[in-house]
Amino acid sequence: MGSRALAGALSEAQLDSLADREGTTLREALVAYGLEPALLPAARIAPGSVHAFLELHIEQGPVLERAGVPIGVVTGIAAPHDVRLTVRGTAGHAGATPMSHRRDALLGAAEIALAAERLANASPSTSVVATTGVLHVHPGAVNVIPGEVVLEVDVRDRELGARERVVAELLSAARETCDRRGLELSVATLVEDRPVTCAPAVVEAVRGAAEAAGFAAMDLVSGAFHDAMILAAVAPVGMLFVPSRNGISHHPAEHTDPEQLDAGVAVLTAALARLASS
Amino acid sequence: MGSRALAGALSEAQLDSLADREGTTLREALVAYGLEPALLPAARIAPGSVHAFLELHIEQGPVLERAGVPIGVVTGIAAPHDVRLTVRGTAGHAGATPMSHRRDALLGAAEIALAAERLANASPSTSVVATTGVLHVHPGAVNVIPGEVVLEVDVRDRELGARERVVAELLSAARETCDRRGLELSVATLVEDRPVTCAPAVVEAVRGAAEAAGFAAMDLVSGAFHDAMILAAVAPVGMLFVPSRNGISHHPAEHTDPEQLDAGVAVLTAALARLASS
Repeated sequence: MGSRALAGALSEAQLDSLADREGTTLREALVAYGLEPALLPAARIAPGSVHAFLELHIEQGPVLERAGVPIGVVTGIAAPHDVRLTVRGTAGHAGATPMSHRRDALLGAAEIALAAERLANASPSTSVVATTGVLHVHPGAVNVIPGEVVLEVDVRDRELGARERVVAELLSAARETCDRRGLELSVATLVEDRPVTCAPAVVEAVRGAAEAAGFAAMDLVSGAFHDAMILAAVAPVGMLFVPSRNGISHHPAEHTDPEQLDAGVAVLTAALARLASS
Repeated sequence: MGSRALAGALSEAQLDSLADREGTTLREALVAYGLEPALLPAARIAPGSVHAFLELHIEQGPVLERAGVPIGVVTGIAAPHDVRLTVRGTAGHAGATPMSHRRDALLGAAEIALAAERLANASPSTSVVATTGVLHVHPGAVNVIPGEVVLEVDVRDRELGARERVVAELLSAARETCDRRGLELSVATLVEDRPVTCAPAVVEAVRGAAEAAGFAAMDLVSGAFHDAMILAAVAPVGMLFVPSRNGISHHPAEHTDPEQLDAGVAVLTAALARLASS
């Protein structure tokens, strides 16, 4: 939320509408921390007033570790387009309903999840990913044919056009599946953010700093989004990554070796020095 | 449980191990109802002492309604073989993990659910059915690749051999899917009952009674199991069905027209009279 406030992307109304699981609003949390919510508009960065924003982060993915490369030069930040698909069929007794008389919502949902994978793999963009992370079956008993399934699919890419093509193809495939199986389909958009291309000058500063310091580096797209994605609205942005063991993050098993952290800090410092003198 | 007690398929130990959601055991419920649990062994029917057992039931499926036929002559009772499959992959960030580096448990589970449908349809037995009624995704967040999925598949048929072939083919397909996708698979059996063939004399009595009374009748296999499946261990059994509107049962929408119920009672009575004089 800090980066959204800096970018002018946090409204006064959201201070009261955003709340944690206990119901504490953002406004209440700010006050409890000794901050002054009324100063929110003053937090905004005037566009053009920031020379560059550079962010160091763990990769949260397996690419650097597998490649044995210590520094990732982030060239773009993918953004998600998330959809919730509700597939409705007819619940029925698993024993008493012949196969030919069924409208099984789960089988439709299974085809949709597999289509998401197939379409991401078939995209001309090699960085597009599609994931079905949520799938709820109703009523959910071993002897009842599923009457309704809700699934949520996340599609991401650094290229907006490629991402939107996969989303469109997915919705088209979902409709074809549901028509063929006699199922009803409804679609809701959960999230639709814009991907960011990192500023060439910032990318060059990171690449040059890594090379000068003798660290191998490779270009990467950030699949997770970060403060830099938000701040791209008001400043030239860039990022660099260090490896994440097994790609794990937000979990007690998250780990990056101390030497890898040191390398990241060294390249960050040198890149900032390059940007400051440019 | 009454039919299991009559068939000697309810043990003294189960009176204490079987309990409802509130924790009330079967023994406690029997005593509260004024029955004497110690008489359980005496409830058992001596094999050969019962001439025939005939059960009238609603179909719980859509076949009679769709065919416009008022009486179903049950020739066999299918029995379930239920398995729980646990598919394990690797959870990961949906944005930061390239498609090629994934071990997505949900995609494996989706292939397994579709294989269950395909194998049931491909079976030489036209009465075999396979249903994935339960599917749980862990951790179940839109931006996390599913690391584990538990699914439960119910396979039924009147023919034990045909049913077991589908179960074996399904487990083989599940292993192939998991091997190809780098997933781990574990399998547990939940239920494995024996299908029943109705006694020819009982089937003939129902068929003859329906014909004599002028009701159209058709042969059916019961996909749901009933008391008759249990009592087949100690007596010749048979069943007749009346239509269920939309195949719905165990639900407020369950309905059979009064004239259809009357037709069922008339054929039941006439069939019992035929059996009594045979």
